[in-house]
Amino acid sequence: MTATAQQLEFIKDSIKTIPDYPKPGILFRDVTSLLENPAAYQASIDLLTARFRDTGVTKVVGTEARGFLFGAPVALALGVGFVPVRKPGKLPRETISEEYELEYGTDKLEIHTDAIKPGDKVLVIDDLLATGGTIEATAKLIRRLGGEVSDAAFIINLPELGGEKRLNGLDITCYSLVCFSGH
Amino acid sequence: MTATAQQLEFIKDSIKTIPDYPKPGILFRDVTSLLENPAAYQASIDLLTARFRDTGVTKVVGTEARGFLFGAPVALALGVGFVPVRKPGKLPRETISEEYELEYGTDKLEIHTDAIKPGDKVLVIDDLLATGGTIEATAKLIRRLGGEVSDAAFIINLPELGGEKRLNGLDITCYSLVCFSGH
Repeated sequence: MTATAQQLEFIKDSIKTIPDYPKPGILFRDVTSLLENPAAYQASIDLLTARFRDTGVTKVVGTEARGFLFGAPVALALGVGFVPVRKPGKLPRETISEEYELEYGTDKLEIHTDAIKPGDKVLVIDDLLATGGTIEATAKLIRRLGGEVSDAAFIINLPELGGEKRLNGLDITCYSLVCFSGH
Repeated sequence: MTATAQQLEFIKDSIKTIPDYPKPGILFRDVTSLLENPAAYQASIDLLTARFRDTGVTKVVGTEARGFLFGAPVALALGVGFVPVRKPGKLPRETISEEYELEYGTDKLEIHTDAIKPGDKVLVIDDLLATGGTIEATAKLIRRLGGEVSDAAFIINLPELGGEKRLNGLDITCYSLVCFSGH
C-alpha cells in the first residue's frame, strides 16, 4: 500500500459506526472518534490541505457545527480566512439565508454578507456528504455573494445517498477521504 | 511593545464589535471577523498552544459551536485528542449531561462517557468567557468522568460578567488573550 492508502485506511478505521442511531436501521458514522485520535485527525487535515494547496482557494467555508472541526484547521493550514455558515440567528452582522429540505420540513442556513467578496474562490468543507442538501444551500449562499464554488471536501462520503451526483449537477466537484456503503 | 503584545493588539483589533446584538444595549464581540483574518486567527491559535505546550494536557474539550473553532486547532497543535461537548441529542454514543442556567430557563450539555479517561488532564477551550455557566457545566462533565480540569482558555474575557471569579472558585485558572470592558 502507498503511504496515502495507509493513511486513508487508518482514518477510516478511526471512525466508529453506531448502529440504529439516530433511529433504527441507520448506521451512523461517528467522526468524533476520529477527533479523539490525534494522529488520525491530523492526517485527515493534512490530506485535505495537500489536495487544495496551490489551487488558488481564497476562503474556506464550513457549515455548523461539525464542518467547523475540519474547515477551520484546513483554512489555517492553507493560510486563508474561515467563514462559518450557521443556523438562523447565530451570526451577528448582516446575513443572507437559504432554505434547505430536511427529511420532515425545512431549515435555514445563514452567512454574513460581507464575508465573501466577488471573485473569492471558496472551498466548502463538511464532515460528511449524505444527500448534499446543506452543501447545496451553502453553495447558493456563496454564489449569491459573488463567490466561486467549484469544490467541496468531506471526510466521509455516503455515495448511496446521492450527494455527489447532486453537487456535480451544480458544477461542484466532490473530494472525500473515505466512503461507506450502507447507511 | 513586545512581539506578543503586538500580536495581542492585532488579535483584539480583528474582533468587530456589533452594537445592540442580540438585544439593545449589548456590545457583541464577534470572533467571526477574527476567523476571516488568517494571520490573526493563526496568531490566536499559536498563543494558546504556546501557553499549554509541555503542561501535560492529554485532551482538549471544546463547547459547541464556537469552542470548536479554537479548541480543535489547539488540540491538533498540541498533538492531543479533541472532545466536543454538545447540545442534547447530537452525540451518537453513550453520554452524560449537565444542566446550566440561561438568562431565562436552563439548557443542557452532553459529553461521550468514553471520551474522557480517569486521569486525563483536560484543557477546556471556548471563544468567550462571560458568566462561565457553560464552562462550569463542561468542567462538571469532565470531572464526573474522572478527568482533571485545572485550566480553561478563551480568546475573549468579559471580566465584568464574573466568569473568571466563578471558575476560580471551582479551582480552574482562566487564560484569555484579550479583555473587553462594557458588554
